[in-house]
Formats: sequence, structure tokens, C-alpha cells
Amino acid sequence: MTSRTDAVRRHDPAVRGFASDNYAGVHPEILAAIALANDGHQVAYGEDQYTEHLQTVFRKHFGDKAEAYPVFNGTGANVVALQALLPRWGAVVAAESAHINVDECGAPEKIAGLKLLTVPTPDGKLTPELIDRQAWGWGDEHRAQPLAVSITQSTELGTLYTAEEIKAICDHAHEHGMLVHLDGSRIANAAASLGLPLRAFTTDAGVDVLSFGGTKNGLLLGEAVVVLNPERVRDLKYLRKMSMQLASKMRFVSVQFEALLAGDLWLRNAAHSNAMAKRLADAVENIDGVTIVRPVQANAVFALLPREVSERLQKRYRFYFWNEHTGEVRWMAAFDTTEADIDAFAAAIAEEMGRV
Amino acid sequence: MTSRTDAVRRHDPAVRGFASDNYAGVHPEILAAIALANDGHQVAYGEDQYTEHLQTVFRKHFGDKAEAYPVFNGTGANVVALQALLPRWGAVVAAESAHINVDECGAPEKIAGLKLLTVPTPDGKLTPELIDRQAWGWGDEHRAQPLAVSITQSTELGTLYTAEEIKAICDHAHEHGMLVHLDGSRIANAAASLGLPLRAFTTDAGVDVLSFGGTKNGLLLGEAVVVLNPERVRDLKYLRKMSMQLASKMRFVSVQFEALLAGDLWLRNAAHSNAMAKRLADAVENIDGVTIVRPVQANAVFALLPREVSERLQKRYRFYFWNEHTGEVRWMAAFDTTEADIDAFAAAIAEEMGRV
Amino acid sequence: MTSRTDAVRRHDPAVRGFASDNYAGVHPEILAAIALANDGHQVAYGEDQYTEHLQTVFRKHFGDKAEAYPVFNGTGANVVALQALLPRWGAVVAAESAHINVDECGAPEKIAGLKLLTVPTPDGKLTPELIDRQAWGWGDEHRAQPLAVSITQSTELGTLYTAEEIKAICDHAHEHGMLVHLDGSRIANAAASLGLPLRAFTTDAGVDVLSFGGTKNGLLLGEAVVVLNPERVRDLKYLRKMSMQLASKMRFVSVQFEALLAGDLWLRNAAHSNAMAKRLADAVENIDGVTIVRPVQANAVFALLPREVSERLQKRYRFYFWNEHTGEVRWMAAFDTTEADIDAFAAAIAEEMGRV
Amino acid sequence: MTSRTDAVRRHDPAVRGFASDNYAGVHPEILAAIALANDGHQVAYGEDQYTEHLQTVFRKHFGDKAEAYPVFNGTGANVVALQALLPRWGAVVAAESAHINVDECGAPEKIAGLKLLTVPTPDGKLTPELIDRQAWGWGDEHRAQPLAVSITQSTELGTLYTAEEIKAICDHAHEHGMLVHLDGSRIANAAASLGLPLRAFTTDAGVDVLSFGGTKNGLLLGEAVVVLNPERVRDLKYLRKMSMQLASKMRFVSVQFEALLAGDLWLRNAAHSNAMAKRLADAVENIDGVTIVRPVQANAVFALLPREVSERLQKRYRFYFWNEHTGEVRWMAAFDTTEADIDAFAAAIAEEMGRV
Repeated sequence: MTSRTDAVRRHDPAVRGFASDNYAGVHPEILAAIALANDGHQVAYGEDQYTEHLQTVFRKHFGDKAEAYPVFNGTGANVVALQALLPRWGAVVAAESAHINVDECGAPEKIAGLKLLTVPTPDGKLTPELIDRQAWGWGDEHRAQPLAVSITQSTELGTLYTAEEIKAICDHAHEHGMLVHLDGSRIANAAASLGLPLRAFTTDAGVDVLSFGGTKNGLLLGEAVVVLNPERVRDLKYLRKMSMQLASKMRFVSVQFEALLAGDLWLRNAAHSNAMAKRLADAVENIDGVTIVRPVQANAVFALLPREVSERLQKRYRFYFWNEHTGEVRWMAAFDTTEADIDAFAAAIAEEMGRV
Repeated sequence: MTSRTDAVRRHDPAVRGFASDNYAGVHPEILAAIALANDGHQVAYGEDQYTEHLQTVFRKHFGDKAEAYPVFNGTGANVVALQALLPRWGAVVAAESAHINVDECGAPEKIAGLKLLTVPTPDGKLTPELIDRQAWGWGDEHRAQPLAVSITQSTELGTLYTAEEIKAICDHAHEHGMLVHLDGSRIANAAASLGLPLRAFTTDAGVDVLSFGGTKNGLLLGEAVVVLNPERVRDLKYLRKMSMQLASKMRFVSVQFEALLAGDLWLRNAAHSNAMAKRLADAVENIDGVTIVRPVQANAVFALLPREVSERLQKRYRFYFWNEHTGEVRWMAAFDTTEADIDAFAAAIAEEMGRV
Repeated sequence: MTSRTDAVRRHDPAVRGFASDNYAGVHPEILAAIALANDGHQVAYGEDQYTEHLQTVFRKHFGDKAEAYPVFNGTGANVVALQALLPRWGAVVAAESAHINVDECGAPEKIAGLKLLTVPTPDGKLTPELIDRQAWGWGDEHRAQPLAVSITQSTELGTLYTAEEIKAICDHAHEHGMLVHLDGSRIANAAASLGLPLRAFTTDAGVDVLSFGGTKNGLLLGEAVVVLNPERVRDLKYLRKMSMQLASKMRFVSVQFEALLAGDLWLRNAAHSNAMAKRLADAVENIDGVTIVRPVQANAVFALLPREVSERLQKRYRFYFWNEHTGEVRWMAAFDTTEADIDAFAAAIAEEMGRV
Repeated sequence: MTSRTDAVRRHDPAVRGFASDNYAGVHPEILAAIALANDGHQVAYGEDQYTEHLQTVFRKHFGDKAEAYPVFNGTGANVVALQALLPRWGAVVAAESAHINVDECGAPEKIAGLKLLTVPTPDGKLTPELIDRQAWGWGDEHRAQPLAVSITQSTELGTLYTAEEIKAICDHAHEHGMLVHLDGSRIANAAASLGLPLRAFTTDAGVDVLSFGGTKNGLLLGEAVVVLNPERVRDLKYLRKMSMQLASKMRFVSVQFEALLAGDLWLRNAAHSNAMAKRLADAVENIDGVTIVRPVQANAVFALLPREVSERLQKRYRFYFWNEHTGEVRWMAAFDTTEADIDAFAAAIAEEMGRV
């Protein structure tokens, strides 16, 4: 990039964090794709050639019936997708720890009037049995009608559903007249970790619509609502516009997805961040006083360590307490986390633990 | 940009259109700024150094009290801003031709429950007198309470308010307990055309909050809600998140605004597109059978010509009928429209007119 | 009624007003019906025997497919009915003067996210041509999709549609994929004036759902959403509950409708109030300086007279200015307005006019 | 009531049920009050003399600052009240068993965009500690902001808060910047059981707004939003209208409240239904195989007995399973439940148990 600009570089790229996979920037191949789509005029609002081609890209991964609708962010993808599943009186069965429940400022309720029927789960995963705790009362107008189930893959707790587990959920939901949404904010991490094609645990398992995450896997910005069951999930285009998620210069969102999904960039990025999380878990599990408290199945590590150690560490590396009460912390690896980053961080943990 | 990518260039940059200023791509200085902000880790959701600096950038233009909140798109900016002005029972007085009324799929009503009280206007501009047609009934609970006025600058019809006209509207609104929103999707075009600093017809005129448009002026994507009256317009951060307009990798939105606004790129782009519209108007006004039907004060030209001519022209250049009934068409110039583009288009118009 | 009560009569029943037909109280036959349904236990929320029988009552008037859903008030009926017609992105074409647009505090927008696409009409009536001013843009996601038409019979301006006019609207709407709602807050007045059975200008004309008004025709309280096209208008029960319009002791709403509709009370009340309006119009049209400005087709009289006369009259009889700018006033007759009331009011008008 | 009516008595008043206190009809003193307010014209929408006087009536019970807003039903009262407490991004901490969470078809979420942050509680009661499980995250825009607490008195599980417990909750909430709503659908039962004036556990305990229940305590229909803290809870009139809860002939709602509250009818009715519940509990607690599973503090009895016994009993008396899984049933007493009703029901229980 040789053009001059009045903007000034204000950050030190050497500073690394483990707070979130969206602290990372844009993968160079994605930036290259954006430049490629630049110049000249393209029809706005999704009638461009990149968005048109995007359908082919997504169908390669999700089957011939898939329809992809690029949106801006994960909350937008989830709220658009869930509205498409539900009448005005519908409710969504979800894990208490679901992002839609805890991290979207109530957007599902406030923007779309969606009632969430939540179930506490130890590992962030629903099961048919857990769903049944909330899936009842059909026909009773006093109860917001449970007509959809939303699961997250990989979950907010860094765990994974197997393809069979998702199929069991979808079969169960469908038997009861409910549709299934999958929040795939980190779906690439799930595929990489499971060693499965994307469709194996989505289309083939019976998922009706999913939120496909791009931002955390190296995009500048971009998620997509992917409809897998177009007989039941319809009219996305109106919901997307009405929900303020329709990009005017959509070519620049779509071309990023092409760069991610046409080859194996999505898988390289995801496999790498997964490996970095694993490397971190391996490095710290032998440090006395540090306990890995959840299975490390994707790119997240959840750990317990003395609170004062965490607080000292936070002065050196940014990360979050996951649970203020227990002191559990969450460390995330990103597509651009390096082995050196992990090793330095693990060393810092060991060093701070040694000062206890 | 030298990185390889799996994406493929799919469009011909030589094809030009006059349908919308968002058919253009990204200005090279903006792309350079994005690259500058890349690499390394920055806190997500707006706690990054670019967004922090952005406040300084916007205050230079809008005064020391201004607060800027980057969002994704214009509909998002408008809906977030208007929610901040109004209690649940509030209504917005707006021109019938306002973008919030005609081009947002009802998002103000559907997402935010905002009632629009519209007034027909010949030139897209409100006046105190026109506002009074809807601004009444305070205290009567049967009437959605008119508590805000929304104006667009430059308007959807390519016209401009003078700074004095906006001040008269703000004074009038404030006297009646109403706050004022300015939809500045093309605010840079207005400033360039008026030859005024941005604050002259916003902050200094009494506007309370505005939607600052970046996308149409050369950004990849990005608008900002700019609060000018922080005593009355509050809590934007919750409204932005709840309205699904909070970018995770916000540095890349913010740095674009820095590139646009730190120097004069915003003005160069806007002045250029205005000049191109003027060039087009000048070129066609002497063509027999073509009538320029609205003042050309920004980057839009509205014209009447025989419908069959327009339809033949549309096969060569993309543009829209503005009014299907009258046959009025709209031609927009963008920051990247060249003199050659205009001349070729004007020649095509003359040529097609000659075949009548 | 012989039971003691701690409540005290606080009003003078001799005071009469012409401001609204809901200034009247409850017809004695309705009170008798309430008493009849009292005592003992009945299942709440509409599973009682009165509500069950109500279906038969409504089907007698609206045909064998009709389904009646009692609700509390007119705004509730309209908002529930319109939600049933529309997807989340739908819009309603309506007259600018429609109650849903001007007198419901924005409930359609705020509660149900309904965008209203309004058309100015001189007489409060839509026509296929007027509908077409807003009925366009299907398939364009930037436009809230016009998928319903709402008409009021008798209108807010005291005028009537003929059965043929309604049929023409319904045919036109259906041809364009829109459904039709009829706000029948004063539907009985329309039937009485037209001399037609209720179904002649509703079911038989193609109306899909209507709001049936009871309160203004002598009920204590009660309106009903009546579905005429159950193939297209569904799931009312969830919308009614969700919209906070489900009465627990519904037997007392339903039995009122039975008392109104099983015999001819509905028609007697409506014909009477129509006749009283006509008597008033006849009495004042010869008073110099008083002009009847709209056709008197139901129970409303709209008149122009000197503002100071109106203001003096308002000290003797309560009524409203319909238009503050022109000085137009509205006088309504109710089921309990007597000939003596009318004659005294007309005399008062003449007397005050004589003082000009 | 001697007027003829076309309605026909369709139910057998001798049939008694224990399913809900709203299976009962209207208390004779209430019917008398309605008749008293009838005849003649009164200004609609709450400007009548009964509604004006109602303020005096409510202030006698709730203190001089109280403001009462009659509405139609309990869901309406709760949703109007909670909207008045919260900005658009607010959330309500409530018990998982709260009526607003489980029995209102999602109206709080769907109509008002209110996010509920629920806490499981064994007895339907919140405590400061339980509130703290959800009351956190202020300032973090990713979390719907917990700005209100809603408690129910008496609770949905038939239990009571002491005045001190409510005060502790209010103090705790206020310390954290949250306001307190009390769902008083059965508030009279609470006062009667506690032997306290209504204000002792509401106004004097720090409650900011409450839903006052009339329907279950003998009204035909009617609840009231009662504002106790008018400095913080404002603009009810717009919220009530917008929420479709404004009665046109409001005099008939208000006069019922006068009849209920001017003397001691409210207390007589509540004390009686409480006593009947106690009589039932006393009668069945010695029946082998029947266990009273919750404290009987108001007018509800929750019991465990063999499911087949319950199902046989339901053929003789209507009541509900409270929990389909455990087989727990709920029996409610109403203002018109007689000692004979209770004795017959208890005998039926014993008889059916004897057939096990």
C-alpha cells in the first residue's frame, strides 16, 4: 500500500493480548482481496459481482441449497437469523451462557422482541434433555411459544458439539416443530478441531440457519447469515435491511468471504488459533496453582489461578476475568497469535505464579 | 498490496455508473489508512487507540463538546441517533422524502418504535412553518409526541439548507421542546458546496445530534453518530450496542475517519463529486428535451427526459428512475467520477436524445 | 341493583355532551347481560361458555368462517389485527386521517413495528387509485413492504363506503398481494346507515379481518377482532395475549357482545345515534353562519361556525375542535342522545350565533 | 337488574372451581358501583369524575404522592409500569417464577423490549443476595443494564414477603441505582395476611411503582399502575395509551376501584379468600398421601398427591397441575369461595384418595 494518508499509525503491533480473538487485525490475504475488489463502480447493496459469486463459495461448503447473506457483525447475524425462524410470539431455547443471552445488550429482546428461554449448562452445550426443560407449552397462549433452538459452535466456553450431538438436537427440535439456529461466530475453529467439513455438522446435521463468523477468523469485518433450509427460513433480505445490517458497498464484505472460503484460509487461520490455545494449555497445565478448568477444544483456554496473579498478569497482557466470583479467567488465541507470543505469555504466568 | 489471495477480481473497473455515490469503491488514502492500523492487537469494541484519537478529530470539526460514535451504516446511524433523542412515546417530524421515511424498510418504526410525522416538501427541505404542520398536540396522550425534528443535509433531492435556515429550524424546534437531528449522509458535499466549515451549519446552528456520512465520501464502510449536545443526547453507547451497530474491530472504522477528516480528504472528495454533478448539469442543460428539474447544489442531478431515452441510456449506464410516474431520473456523481466519465455520459445522453 | 356499595354517584346524568360517542355510558340491556353472566365460576381467559357461544353470534352476522376474538379497546383490536396480517417488514396503506395514524399514540409503530404508508384523502376514504400512491415497491428491500390496506367504516370523518367501494378496494388489494383490514369502531352505524347486513360490506366484499366496535355502541367496554379469512389471518390468540389484550374474566366481555348482537340492539343503538346526528344537521343547517362541511352519513356532524361561538358553546356543551386551524368542530351523537338533547343543543347553537 | 336483554344465562353458578381466583365473577358491591356510575355523559379516557376522585382513594392507602393509572389487565399493568422504570437498554431482575417471565407470552420482551434477568428461587421470593446474581455489569454496554427489580406480593407460589424483606430489597436496589416494581396482582391478599396497611410494605418500604390487582379481588376487570415515586417514575399517561391500556369509558373501571377501596371491601374479599385457602389446607393436611408443599400464606394451596387422584379430581373440580413433572397441583380460593365449597372439595379429595 503506497498511497499517502493523513491517518497516523498509533499503536504498537508488538503488544499482544489474549482477551479476545477480535483483538487481532486483518489477515493480509483479506486486505489483498479488498484491494482487488476496489476501483470502478459496482452496484450497491449486494447486487455486485462479488456477492453474486459468494453464493457459489458458500454452497461449496454448505450444499446446493445454501443462501448466504453478508451482514456486519455477530449480533446482527444472530438477530436477523432468529427473526427469520420465528413468528412474533416465538421464543428461543438457548444455553444460559449463550452470547445472544449475555453479551448482546438484550438486542434479541429489544430489537426483535425475541424471548429467550434459557437453560443452565455446565459446558455451554445443550442436549435434547436440556432443551426439554424449556421446550413445552405449545398451544398455550400464556407462554411465549418455543419454536426455535439456538446453539453455539464452538461454544462460548470453548467446547465443541460433535456432529452427532448436533444431529440429535436438530432431530429432537424438528420433531417438536422447532427450527435450529447455530451461532457460528467461531464455526471455523469447530470444523478445524473436529476435522470435519463445515457441512458435516450443519447442513447434514439438520441445522436450519447459521451465523457464519468471519471477523474473529481474520476478516476486517463481516459475518453471514447462511440459510440451509430455504423452505422454512425465508425473506432474509427484508429482515437484513430492516435490521440495519445491509452494507451499501457490499462487495468489500463479500470479497473478504471469498478470500476466506474459496481456498483454505478459513481452515489455516482456525487451525492455527486452535493450536495456539492448545500450546498455551499445555504450557501452563504444569504450572503449580494454575488449573485448566474446561476442555480446550477450540481457541479458548479457561483457567483458575490466584486472583492477585491474574491482576498482575493483566498489567502485562490484556485478558478478562470470565467469572468475577470464582476468579476464572479466559485466554483466547487468534489467527495471528504466534508461538513466541504463547511462550512469552506462559513464561509470564509462571513468573507471576512464582511470586505468590 | 502484494499478498496473495484466493479471491479473484470479478469486475471491470472501467464500467462507470451514475446510480449512486455508493457504487464507488474505497479511496486509496482510506485503504492506506486501514493498512496502517493493521497488525498487532488492539482492544476491541472501541477501546482502541484509533477510536480514542477519533474524538480529537471530530472535535476539530464540530467543537469541544462533540462525541463521535462510529457505526456501520446510515440507517444504523439514524436509528441510533433518533432513539437517543426520544422517549418511547416520541415522534419525529421529517420531510416526506427523508431517507428515514422512504429508504430504510421501516427500520425507525420497526427497530426503534419511532413514529414519523411527515410533511410533503417540494425541495426536500423543512421550514419552521412546515414543521408546524406536524408539531402540535403536546400533552395529548392520543398523539405520538413530536419531540424531535430530522433534517437531511444535503437533502435527498440534492438541495441544501443554508446555515441560517438550519439555525431557524433549530431555534424553532428548541422553543417547542423538540431536539434536532441532522442526517448527514452527504454532509461533506453540503460543506463543500456552502463553502463553510462543518460546524457552521451544525454545532453553531444548534443541531443536537447528527449522522455523519463516510461511506458515500470514500470510506469502505463507516458512519458516525456525532453528539453535539451531550447534555440532552446521552447514553449512545448502550443504544449503539443494542442496535447491533458496535464494530468489534472498530479501529478499522475509526482510522478511516481519521484519514478522511484529519486533513482535507473529506473536502477534496466532496468538492470533486459536487463539481462533477455541476459539470454534468452544465453539459446536459442545453440538450433539447432534457430538463434539469431541481437545483444542483450538491452531487445529484435530477432530470426529466423522454422515458424511452432513459431506458436506452440505462443499458449503457446504470442509474435510477426517481419517480416512476413522471419519469424523473437521478444521476449521482461520486468522489471517483472523472471528467471523462461525465463527458462520455453527457455525450451518450445527447446521442440517445438525437435518436428520438 | 340493590346491593350496597361504598362508591358514591359523583356525576350529574343530566349533563349531556357531543364530544364523543364514548362519553355515553352502558346500555341497560348490556348491564343486564353482565349481571346474567355473573355468579359462580367460569374458566378464565376465554374458555367460558359465553365466549364459546360468541362464535355462533358473530357467525350469524359475518358468515360461517368468522372467528371472533374479544379484546379491550379499539387500539388493541387494530394493533392485534394488523399484526396478524403482516410479516415484520410489512407496511399498511391507510388514510392520513385514520385513527391508527392520528389517535393511537403511535401504538401501531411502537408496539407492533408497523409502518403506516398514509395518503391524504378529503373524505377519509381510500380508493384503489389512492392506495396506489403508496402501494408499490414490492421486492425492494429498502421499502417497507405494502402488504395490507386498512380502511375505516364509518370513517373518522363521518362518511361511508358503499359495499361496492369496499369490494373494489379488496379486489384491488388482493390482486396486488395485500390483505384488507377494516376498522369497524363504528361499523354498526355504517350498517344502519347503509341499510345492509354487516356481512354485505365486509365478508362478502372481501375484507380479511376487522375490528368490531362495541364500546361506542353501548358496551361498558369491549371490541372484537373478527377474522373473516382464516386461511390468511392466523394465530390471533398468541397476538392477543402478547399484545396484552386478553381479558381474564372474558365472560363479561363476551356476554355484552351477545346482548348486542343476538337480537337487534346493535342496530337500534346505531340507527338511533345516526338519526340524532341527522336531526342535529337538519336543525342547524338553516342557522345563518353555520355550515355543515361533510356529508352526515353516520353519527357525526362536522360544522364550521365562528370560533368565538364555538368557544361559548363549549362552556355549555362539551365538544371538540376537529381542526384548530380552520375552526371546524365535530359533534357526535350517541346511542343515548335524545331528541330533547339535540333540540336543546340546536337551540343553544342558534342562540349563541344570534349573539355574534 | 330488571332490564330485558337478548343474552341468555349459559352457565351453572353451582359449579365451583379451584383453578384460579379469576374464575370467580364480580362482587355484587362492584356491580352496584358500575350501575351507579352509569347514565349520562362523562368525559372519556380518564377525565371523568370517578377517575379524578380515584386519586384520593388510592392516596388514602398509599400516601399523598401516589398516582393511580387504571388499566385493563395485569400484563398491561406490569408492562406499562416496567417501561416507566427503564430506558430502552434496561433490564429487570426478577424471580424465574415471576408472572412477567412465565405467563405473559413474552409481552415484556415483545411489546416493551424489556430483557428479564431471572433468578431461580425456591419460594418465589427474591432477596438482596439473589438479586446480586444478576445485578452487575453496569457500564458495560454488552450487558443489558440491570436497572429495575420486580417482585410479586403475594408471590406466584402463594408466599409472602414481610415489610422488612421488601424494605431490604428496595434499599439494596436503590443503593445500586435500580428502581423497584411490585407486581401486586394479589396485593390485597398480602395485606390481609400480613395484617398491615397497604402502604406498610409498599410506599413505606421504598417500592417505586406497583401493579395493583383488582380483577382477582372481585372486580369485573381492572388493575392500576400506582406510582409511589413520582420523581423517578414519570410519563405514565403516554406509556399507558401507547401500550393500548387506556379505557375510553374509564369511569366504569375507576368506580369499581372506589367501591373496592373506599371502604373495606378489598380487605373483606382478600381475608376471606385467604381464610378459605387456609381452611382447605387444614382440611387436607391430615389426608394420607396429600402433602402441602409450600407455606399457605395467601389464597393458594400447593399440594402433592398421586397423579391419578388429581386426574380423577379434575373431572369433578377444575384446577391445574403446577408442575407436570412432579405432579404438584395448585388450588386457589376466591372471594366467593364458600366454606361449603371447601368442605365439599376436601371431602372429594379424601374420597378420591381413598380409592387409591
